[in-house]
Amino acid sequence: MRFETTRRDGTARSGKLILERGTVETPVFMPVGTNGAIKMCTRDCVKKAGATIVLANAFHLYLKPGLEILREFGGIHDFASWDIPVLTDSGGFQIFSLSKNIKVDDDGADFKSPFDGTVHRFTPEKVVEIQETIGSDIAMVLDECLAPTDLESTKKSMKRTFKWAQRAILAHKRKDQALFGITQGGFFEETRRESTIEITSLPFDGFGIGGLSVGEDIDTTIKMLDVVLPLMPEDRPRYLMGVGDPLLMLEAVERGVDMMDCVLPTRMARHGGILTSQGRINIRAAIYEKDKGPLDPSCDCEVCRSYSRGYIHHLIKRNESTGMILATYHNIYFLTDLMKRSKAAIINKEFKEFKEEVLSKMKYQKRRVL
Amino acid sequence: MRFETTRRDGTARSGKLILERGTVETPVFMPVGTNGAIKMCTRDCVKKAGATIVLANAFHLYLKPGLEILREFGGIHDFASWDIPVLTDSGGFQIFSLSKNIKVDDDGADFKSPFDGTVHRFTPEKVVEIQETIGSDIAMVLDECLAPTDLESTKKSMKRTFKWAQRAILAHKRKDQALFGITQGGFFEETRRESTIEITSLPFDGFGIGGLSVGEDIDTTIKMLDVVLPLMPEDRPRYLMGVGDPLLMLEAVERGVDMMDCVLPTRMARHGGILTSQGRINIRAAIYEKDKGPLDPSCDCEVCRSYSRGYIHHLIKRNESTGMILATYHNIYFLTDLMKRSKAAIINKEFKEFKEEVLSKMKYQKRRVL
Repeated sequence: MRFETTRRDGTARSGKLILERGTVETPVFMPVGTNGAIKMCTRDCVKKAGATIVLANAFHLYLKPGLEILREFGGIHDFASWDIPVLTDSGGFQIFSLSKNIKVDDDGADFKSPFDGTVHRFTPEKVVEIQETIGSDIAMVLDECLAPTDLESTKKSMKRTFKWAQRAILAHKRKDQALFGITQGGFFEETRRESTIEITSLPFDGFGIGGLSVGEDIDTTIKMLDVVLPLMPEDRPRYLMGVGDPLLMLEAVERGVDMMDCVLPTRMARHGGILTSQGRINIRAAIYEKDKGPLDPSCDCEVCRSYSRGYIHHLIKRNESTGMILATYHNIYFLTDLMKRSKAAIINKEFKEFKEEVLSKMKYQKRRVL
Repeated sequence: MRFETTRRDGTARSGKLILERGTVETPVFMPVGTNGAIKMCTRDCVKKAGATIVLANAFHLYLKPGLEILREFGGIHDFASWDIPVLTDSGGFQIFSLSKNIKVDDDGADFKSPFDGTVHRFTPEKVVEIQETIGSDIAMVLDECLAPTDLESTKKSMKRTFKWAQRAILAHKRKDQALFGITQGGFFEETRRESTIEITSLPFDGFGIGGLSVGEDIDTTIKMLDVVLPLMPEDRPRYLMGVGDPLLMLEAVERGVDMMDCVLPTRMARHGGILTSQGRINIRAAIYEKDKGPLDPSCDCEVCRSYSRGYIHHLIKRNESTGMILATYHNIYFLTDLMKRSKAAIINKEFKEFKEEVLSKMKYQKRRVL
């Protein structure tokens, strides 16, 4: 992997990730295909919607189809017929968010499979091995994702994440796969700073910012970004994990974030939550019943060019999958397009104005995220 | 509407329906979009899969979105952005199959809305009005769909269906919409014959064959077709309602059927039921876990060119909607392609050989349908 940042506008960066399976222009939004498929969106639709890299979850793929099948198929690209780059999340977040009876020690974490109750051990080395088998273009290290807690516990956890990061680097063998470290540090400036300094001292290809956008208010998220980003090396990509809200995305891009992902835009589409240039709407609302206009009057995606709010309202209300397909496509398009426009604004050195204009049209109330 | 049959091979016909929104080559399979959308398949996918006409259900559309909305949008084509011809089923089948407390008399039928328990009266005139509002290219008359019963009841019902057919013709006003009668007559040769003679004496644009493929064995279905089809006028299209099994489709085409529809190929796709040239398979089966081959080695649809059985197995097992999208696309392609190949065989006067070859490859056991 090579990363080039070609233009700046303040701290905002326009760049490109040059990967074996394609070049990814940054800043970029990555749709999430947890089980090796973006829900309600085939590969061709994802690409048509503008995505140039997708995310899959090592944790889920490890459980099903499992490493044996992935090995048999030669990795996720051949298995899922994905011809664009794939980033795999390490599973850290899932282990900590999905498992009820998790046992963590300095060596790693035990979790129970939701399928058969079997106990599996995830260590930094194992998680590297899993992602090497999956064959993603970018792998993430195992980190400890704590729920917000006190300073003492945060420090302890941060130290563990650092040690795990070192072990991951030592275990990583595939030269055709980039490996990203993950900075943690909870919601304290001190630990965020320390974690960033520690993790970025290691020879990773890029850096994730983890443990944010997990329920805290946006001012806290931004405060943490303001601590972390200035400490990150200029020459490597920065990936803010789990963020897909337009407001927070633009705040992050302004501060120098290059990559983001989030399951929310596709998940909320399936329930009628639509991102538009005038703010988020729920297409299930009765006011859209007779609405002949497109989901977003400013959007030129195929769905907005072909279909009315009234029709999509009808489909989503009837729980019709085709309505979910149309809404999913639009939401992915909206965010990939937002990143493309952000890039253009950075290149034109007018990102701040662009951001203000987008956000004022979206009528964000009190800077609330999605 | 104009209908031309250009070539024959025995009783099998190759023809075309010339409708305002497009020409439909026959024989043809029509995918079912009950609520105004084919499940797991957008308009563009349906067209790419080869469909040239789709079916929607007047009964469902009458309930939701309702006539007011459909009127507001100017009909189903503008509402659903469907630019290909649409046939609407009258709702007769739904009234009788879905309603528990149905009250039928000579005037029409009462049924309770599953949404709010309100009682709605369907008469032949009302059903014509509904479909005129929907604006389908082809409308079907209201008929009485009895469960298999004795000769006496069948005769009574058949008479009622005939009277309803006459009333429908008198009520029908839209010149840009074709109106098809429906022959009934249960499972007795006598009543099937009589109903066909009666209904085809009326000036309909085409004729449905109703009340078949409702659970009876295929030999009975074929016996009824052998009674009905020779009595039907040569110059008008014949539509065998609710049939989407390849075996029965080919038997029907051989006997002179031009149009068919069925919800099963799309419904079963969502549960992993895949139509292939080697027979029907269920992709959920463990044997497909590591299978790198396409769903159907003889199929050249986009799904078969891109994806493996193993991947689709994984997705359907994980209940991933994108697996259902891929399977749905393939099944629609399979049946539209089967009809295209049937047409070519009819033109080449080799339909019988074609049919035998297809069926022997599909390894039908004891002529069992889907």
